Amino acid sequence: MRLKKSLFIPFITITCCSFTSIKPVYKYPYQNPAIPVKQRVADLVSRMTLTEKIRQLDMFEGKTVSDMQGHDASSVSAEKMKQTIGTAGIGSIHDFYPIGADLTNQVQKYAIENTRLGIPVLFIEEGLHGYSGRGSTSFPVPIALSTAWDTVLVHQIGRVIATEMRAHGINMILGPVLCLPRDPRWGRTEETYGEDPYLDALNGVAMVKGLQGKKLSDDDAVLAEPKHFAVHGIPEAGSNIATVNIGEREARSSFLYVFEKAIRQGGAQGMMAAYSEMDGIPCVDNEWLLKDVLRKEWGFKGFVLSDLGAIKMTLNSHHTAANASDALAQTFTAGMDMQFYDFPHDDFITAMKLAIQNKSLSMADLNRAVSDVLRVKFKLGLFDNPYINPSLSAKVFHSQQNQDLALQAAKESICLLKNDQHILPLNSNVHSLAVIGPLAKSTYLGGYSNTDDKAISILDGLKQRAGNSININYEAGYEPDSTASLQADYLKKALELVNHADAAVVVLGEDVKEVGEGKDRSNLDINKLQENLIEAVYKTGKPVTVVLANGRPLCINWVAKNIPSIVEAWFGGEKGGLAVADVLLGAYNPSGKLPITFPRSTGQIPFYYNHKPSSRHIYVDQDSTALFNFGHGLSYTTFSYDDLQISPLKIPVNGTATITVKVKNTGNVEGTEVAQLYIRDVVSSVTTPVQSLKGFSRVNLKPGESGTVTFKLNAAELAVWNRQMKHIVEPGEFKIMVGSASDDIRQNGSIYVVK
Amino acid sequence: MRLKKSLFIPFITITCCSFTSIKPVYKYPYQNPAIPVKQRVADLVSRMTLTEKIRQLDMFEGKTVSDMQGHDASSVSAEKMKQTIGTAGIGSIHDFYPIGADLTNQVQKYAIENTRLGIPVLFIEEGLHGYSGRGSTSFPVPIALSTAWDTVLVHQIGRVIATEMRAHGINMILGPVLCLPRDPRWGRTEETYGEDPYLDALNGVAMVKGLQGKKLSDDDAVLAEPKHFAVHGIPEAGSNIATVNIGEREARSSFLYVFEKAIRQGGAQGMMAAYSEMDGIPCVDNEWLLKDVLRKEWGFKGFVLSDLGAIKMTLNSHHTAANASDALAQTFTAGMDMQFYDFPHDDFITAMKLAIQNKSLSMADLNRAVSDVLRVKFKLGLFDNPYINPSLSAKVFHSQQNQDLALQAAKESICLLKNDQHILPLNSNVHSLAVIGPLAKSTYLGGYSNTDDKAISILDGLKQRAGNSININYEAGYEPDSTASLQADYLKKALELVNHADAAVVVLGEDVKEVGEGKDRSNLDINKLQENLIEAVYKTGKPVTVVLANGRPLCINWVAKNIPSIVEAWFGGEKGGLAVADVLLGAYNPSGKLPITFPRSTGQIPFYYNHKPSSRHIYVDQDSTALFNFGHGLSYTTFSYDDLQISPLKIPVNGTATITVKVKNTGNVEGTEVAQLYIRDVVSSVTTPVQSLKGFSRVNLKPGESGTVTFKLNAAELAVWNRQMKHIVEPGEFKIMVGSASDDIRQNGSIYVVK
Repeated sequence: MRLKKSLFIPFITITCCSFTSIKPVYKYPYQNPAIPVKQRVADLVSRMTLTEKIRQLDMFEGKTVSDMQGHDASSVSAEKMKQTIGTAGIGSIHDFYPIGADLTNQVQKYAIENTRLGIPVLFIEEGLHGYSGRGSTSFPVPIALSTAWDTVLVHQIGRVIATEMRAHGINMILGPVLCLPRDPRWGRTEETYGEDPYLDALNGVAMVKGLQGKKLSDDDAVLAEPKHFAVHGIPEAGSNIATVNIGEREARSSFLYVFEKAIRQGGAQGMMAAYSEMDGIPCVDNEWLLKDVLRKEWGFKGFVLSDLGAIKMTLNSHHTAANASDALAQTFTAGMDMQFYDFPHDDFITAMKLAIQNKSLSMADLNRAVSDVLRVKFKLGLFDNPYINPSLSAKVFHSQQNQDLALQAAKESICLLKNDQHILPLNSNVHSLAVIGPLAKSTYLGGYSNTDDKAISILDGLKQRAGNSININYEAGYEPDSTASLQADYLKKALELVNHADAAVVVLGEDVKEVGEGKDRSNLDINKLQENLIEAVYKTGKPVTVVLANGRPLCINWVAKNIPSIVEAWFGGEKGGLAVADVLLGAYNPSGKLPITFPRSTGQIPFYYNHKPSSRHIYVDQDSTALFNFGHGLSYTTFSYDDLQISPLKIPVNGTATITVKVKNTGNVEGTEVAQLYIRDVVSSVTTPVQSLKGFSRVNLKPGESGTVTFKLNAAELAVWNRQMKHIVEPGEFKIMVGSASDDIRQNGSIYVVK
Repeated sequence: MRLKKSLFIPFITITCCSFTSIKPVYKYPYQNPAIPVKQRVADLVSRMTLTEKIRQLDMFEGKTVSDMQGHDASSVSAEKMKQTIGTAGIGSIHDFYPIGADLTNQVQKYAIENTRLGIPVLFIEEGLHGYSGRGSTSFPVPIALSTAWDTVLVHQIGRVIATEMRAHGINMILGPVLCLPRDPRWGRTEETYGEDPYLDALNGVAMVKGLQGKKLSDDDAVLAEPKHFAVHGIPEAGSNIATVNIGEREARSSFLYVFEKAIRQGGAQGMMAAYSEMDGIPCVDNEWLLKDVLRKEWGFKGFVLSDLGAIKMTLNSHHTAANASDALAQTFTAGMDMQFYDFPHDDFITAMKLAIQNKSLSMADLNRAVSDVLRVKFKLGLFDNPYINPSLSAKVFHSQQNQDLALQAAKESICLLKNDQHILPLNSNVHSLAVIGPLAKSTYLGGYSNTDDKAISILDGLKQRAGNSININYEAGYEPDSTASLQADYLKKALELVNHADAAVVVLGEDVKEVGEGKDRSNLDINKLQENLIEAVYKTGKPVTVVLANGRPLCINWVAKNIPSIVEAWFGGEKGGLAVADVLLGAYNPSGKLPITFPRSTGQIPFYYNHKPSSRHIYVDQDSTALFNFGHGLSYTTFSYDDLQISPLKIPVNGTATITVKVKNTGNVEGTEVAQLYIRDVVSSVTTPVQSLKGFSRVNLKPGESGTVTFKLNAAELAVWNRQMKHIVEPGEFKIMVGSASDDIRQNGSIYVVK
């Protein structure tokens, strides 16, 4: 039976009847917004055919409903919609970039009016640091955002991303990335918030809340989907999607912790299962992970999506399934809810039906998956208010306010790694500046953002900001793909330029071929061309600043030793170049702190600050220390720490302590310090890290000004996964360390947890 | 009460009464050899005071009973013995190198005659590839022995080591090392049998059986003690004793597998618990590991020793214990039986007594530990026949037979990595040979062997073997600790020598500062001095052979690409230089196969051949392949593979198949091929390696000769640790691959396991 389409068009019904007080009449309970979502889902599922159910668990490409050419669609195709959506409906559409909301509305209208049960489509897109649709606002990459140590900022960015996405009719974002990149060979390091569980969790919660807004059905909210569940940040040998041989305790203590916060505190309603396996079991096929931990322990009520092709990997990579039906039966039984281009759509239906038929997939699990998908569609209001106001995007897209936020984020994301001779900010004697290195002209925004050509390069940023006050000239110094003989020319020209300038800024780092997904590196040194360049520029004797534009820690040992001033700029989004200029020219005093350790060499990896005490990194051919430590970051001023107070000194296992410290700006310019609180469990039933971040606070101070920084430490944050794999707070002493970086602790104390 | 010493001196009693048929009279059952060991242990333990018990769990240094000066003792000290052994006795003595058995006999006599219960001492020493006592026979390092793929050889070497040790009165050896060195940054890689569980297990079993002989009480047997239990070969960042974050399934599938074989098949009676932690729990404090797995699952009946200071690490590194008493209570409760210099002896007694007193250590666990130690003393015959014949060592030490075995082992340990232009063996036109590189003169034997200065260097080996037929000259080419200006001189001299020679042999690798315990490297490239040297020698245009003398895989990319002939010689023991000469000069046709993968760069680590399919090693800056693969090794002849037969094609889960293949020597000289059998589980419930070695066989063939190689494949070897962590054989297809190396498979087939 096919429902008459006119019976269920609530948007249109309500619109045309809004001048009366007559309540709309719904034929079926699921159509009635007044009924609780749970009942609506149950009612709808009970009316669905097997095919309709299976179709809800499938994701389609934008091009299957539109004329998609390259990045954008300019119109939808009735024929394609008929073929794709048909009368049975579909779960979701991805990779569909409409110029405006009218295109998503048209697709949505088709789904609602032409499918038997009028089930709307879920539009899913990318947007790790800015909606990937054209014309959106581009923020710094996540590793840069995390350098700001500013969750208010991250929340605001989440709000902007959601607002811009939803204005296009997009309902769900594939993010944030909550992996801990303990192996920076991994090209996706730039997509993460860095190596620390606590910092990542706070950023993750802020981003999820920012994205999901006040209510998912609002026109400025999208469903957040943390990824990649669960332990994708330490792939074997740093190679993407590789095996993760980790034990449950370490997985829970560090990696799952971040996701748990995103679910329990952030309320994320989506989850992406990772490509990788954990100790022999693929994440997409891991019932313990997807059902026991995610749903039963954490109470997750959203839906779990496969990473692109991850279910199919059980067939062609993990070899834990014999055929498509096996693969789907196993993974949907384990807790998966939607495939992501794993199997062709017709094959998906056939294979799922076979699985149901041969009982390798139970109807209960199928219904659970369908319910999970439908539940978020109800929560997003797609049944009750499926269309987005097409005039919204013009209002919210790339507004001045959003651009200001992008600039603020870029500035906060910058980390001053070194400034030995106070070369920075460039002083007024610098009348001519040589800007060197192709990356100075780069407008690369970072992965999973839009690819608009609107970013301001470092060179342009400097020129804009300096105006006529400094004569700024550029030379490449090298070109990545050029011949050896031409490189000598490039270098010669660059050196000539430097020799005629008062100072040089050399931009080093990674180009688009070296960073991002699928661009794992086996060597984290800067490449030879850059090495030659910086060594030659150094020899000119001119004051040199190195600016790094990169997505992961780089082993810049020679630079760190010889170049007096080094600025970590990451990929700063569309305003990145202006932000770098503001820092170099002294218009902005940097306050960023590293969210990830910089090792001295690839051979020290993994090197994360919160390692276990026995991980000592002792080698015959290398120092045991890192090059730059987690939490490190300088300012143009200095700060003193004083008067650590811990109150009370003894807390119960469910207690909270207040820790305060006085921070004073002891320099000559206004500045912001990120004060950091670390703890160390003195004796524990299982091993615990040498240091763990448990609080941080930004404090802005004028020269000579003091401020009191307050941290709230919940005993719950001191819990360990004990020998019985119970999460408990163990009584005893915990060292309290407050300082300016993980390796720059200024105040020490202890707190005692008592029974 | 103190027993009168004359009541229990069985050795002397039996000697003086041997002419009569009167049976000796024993006051207590434990003294009677006719009573089962279990009862003797129980009886003895029941008579011991708390102090006596605790003392059995402690190990003392040789210098506490002797005049130990440097390496050797020349006499024991009555005063020191009184102080150390006293009347309560002690568990064991270590690091006591007697010139002859008379010294151990004197100590043993003191223990038996002066302690209340006459409990003998256990003498424990090192000997991974030769007893560490002076004058013993030195074999190649274990990674080299494993290159031979010859378990008969390894068994014979075990016999020699045991014979020479026991002749000195030593009862127990600290070995073999059964770690899988998946991270070759780890300096102890040289101590292992390489990366493969199957190859390691077979070598481990062969060594354990060789060491333990027919009967532990024989005068040519020592107790074997596999180490380091359980997962020491993949320390975080390759740094010794670091954290091991591994899951139970991977631990069981690869790492524990090797130890299980050593216990169940090899019958090893000792076990050393590792420094490291596994997923948050120190191995010395891991009840699951030491009681559940080792004792209950595997039926281990020996005793578990701490690695040197490993128990104390729970205090000062792992921080899982608050004080000495805690540390001891926890670890002995978990299953430890003896400390290894963890706490000073008096502190040990005090702390153990406190633990018993406050019931943190039960008397049951204390008695278990004491029983475990005493049981092996009984099994070793130390109660019944405590003295060793002092004339034995002169007979068995460094005999011609042992030396011949050392030479055979060295030859079999050599692996011909490359021989492109058939430069090797050196042909008769080579009348003058330049031998270059300080390592050509090295007599380093490798860690945990003796340090006698008796090894024949590669240079000396070549001179001895070449006699007058070749004019052999040496130049260093570089000196590790010299100044830059002198290096130029060294290089110049070396190049002059090469220019005047018909061919050059350049020895590269690792010196004693770069390899062995505590010598972890962050970079596996050959060092710059060696790099400069080989590049310069190459430019002379002379035929160059590189010989590697090293203890771990090195990233010799340039060498592998440019130098036509490369020989992996490892550290070949006392006859290593002769063996290299025999190979270079063609007196021996090499047959060694790599037991470990050579990566192209440190940044590819971990890179082991039997990785999971998803570990792809894909980088933007590096090939995804290894430099030399597991199982690789050339010969001066060639072999063809033909006629794979699998019978039956279907086997039950407890069945066995016979796999045969015809190997033919297709070259011009006699040679030995190590034919290798690999399997791949086509579909499994949990992920399984891309390839797993399951058999190998050495076959010696004359030119043109064929031989049939037979492998027995037990279905039990196909088992996986399934989702329920049960060890089961899953029905289905398994690919069968037979070939000359893991990356040189010559014959393919399939076998099916059926229900």
